[in-house]
Amino acid sequence: MFELIGFDADDTLWHSETYFQAAHQQFERIVGQYIDLADARLHERLLEVEQRNIRLFGYGAKGMTLSMVEAAIALTSERISAADIHRIVQIGKDVLCHPVELLPGVREAVEAIAARFPVILITKGDLFHQEAKIAACGLAALFPRVEIVSEKDPAAYSRVLLECAVAPERFVMVGNSLRSDIAPVLELGGWGVHVPYHVTWAHELQANVDAASPRLAVVASAADVPAAIERLAG
Amino acid sequence: MFELIGFDADDTLWHSETYFQAAHQQFERIVGQYIDLADARLHERLLEVEQRNIRLFGYGAKGMTLSMVEAAIALTSERISAADIHRIVQIGKDVLCHPVELLPGVREAVEAIAARFPVILITKGDLFHQEAKIAACGLAALFPRVEIVSEKDPAAYSRVLLECAVAPERFVMVGNSLRSDIAPVLELGGWGVHVPYHVTWAHELQANVDAASPRLAVVASAADVPAAIERLAG
Repeated sequence: MFELIGFDADDTLWHSETYFQAAHQQFERIVGQYIDLADARLHERLLEVEQRNIRLFGYGAKGMTLSMVEAAIALTSERISAADIHRIVQIGKDVLCHPVELLPGVREAVEAIAARFPVILITKGDLFHQEAKIAACGLAALFPRVEIVSEKDPAAYSRVLLECAVAPERFVMVGNSLRSDIAPVLELGGWGVHVPYHVTWAHELQANVDAASPRLAVVASAADVPAAIERLAG
Repeated sequence: MFELIGFDADDTLWHSETYFQAAHQQFERIVGQYIDLADARLHERLLEVEQRNIRLFGYGAKGMTLSMVEAAIALTSERISAADIHRIVQIGKDVLCHPVELLPGVREAVEAIAARFPVILITKGDLFHQEAKIAACGLAALFPRVEIVSEKDPAAYSRVLLECAVAPERFVMVGNSLRSDIAPVLELGGWGVHVPYHVTWAHELQANVDAASPRLAVVASAADVPAAIERLAG
């Protein structure tokens, strides 16, 4: 009954948020040398700057890095040294070339599903960084089609499904974010398999999902995804 | 005979490079306060940093801004103030929200061509910024399909044409960059209409194009594009 299975990438196929969170911690260590503020409060202030800049920068490591530079300058009342700002830029560059490490069971799960259904990779964020990670992940050959979008909202999924000539009722999205991978697809009448990651970016926590929806499955890890799709297919 | 006409966006549909060049000049004024170096040499050093970072950042204003911050810190031997670094970040943010101003004759040319042929917008750079400019330009309704790619090379054009089920021989690309819009399309066996912009980013100047190719037309402005396509169609 399903004609297309979509996979999210960051924190669904490979580790990502852990690198971003490590970057935040390094930022807090550098800025913490200048001001007497609890790490939690520093973190909050950085998130405020990031949130404000998202409508200008979009998602991804380059925007995060520019927000870290801005936040560091504001939080230290312009006392931070150029050398420390350079360290912050380097934190961002390190995120942009972090190793691409598949989550346990992902390869086998994608192979099993791709043998049964057409599959597509649908990811959001920085175009260049996402392409680099896809090229490095070792699964590129399994995905004949990749869509990198700036926001995973119902409009974006609609456009992709229209281009693929697939009705939402025939589409399942697999991902770790209720907000980006599950809610918009359920809203269109599609199906979702939620695979939570152990950490979630604060921004992704806001979601409106009917946990009891018969079109939603929640599984513990990638290894359980193929069976969940079979169950949804009834 | 043509089945698809592609349009580049930056410096083909609207002004872009002028904003980037103005940003470079503002950068040179700020950094020039710290060191005794001719503007031309400052500019050269910034281009070196940008060029080195492109394989990590890709194209676009966010990567340019991070390169400007890095270059400013290196050129001033870490003497630049946090306040001046903040000014540099602000230069980049201003580029990200510059007004989208269509080039003369563009609207009429795109309307005329879209009435005769299927059209597609193919642009490279920052996904989020490109989408914002497309939304703001007032031509979005004329382009049923938009492709934002990280690099405009033969592989990228091949993929787009394959997804559109159009042979390269049936495709014309209209753009200002010989390197990104014309050379890769001619290489695939397609056609090109080159509309030079009055300034060209140094990076785009390297191109290998047969100026005498019968599949290439060069025109002075957007207003001449519809007639050039008719002439190529023979």
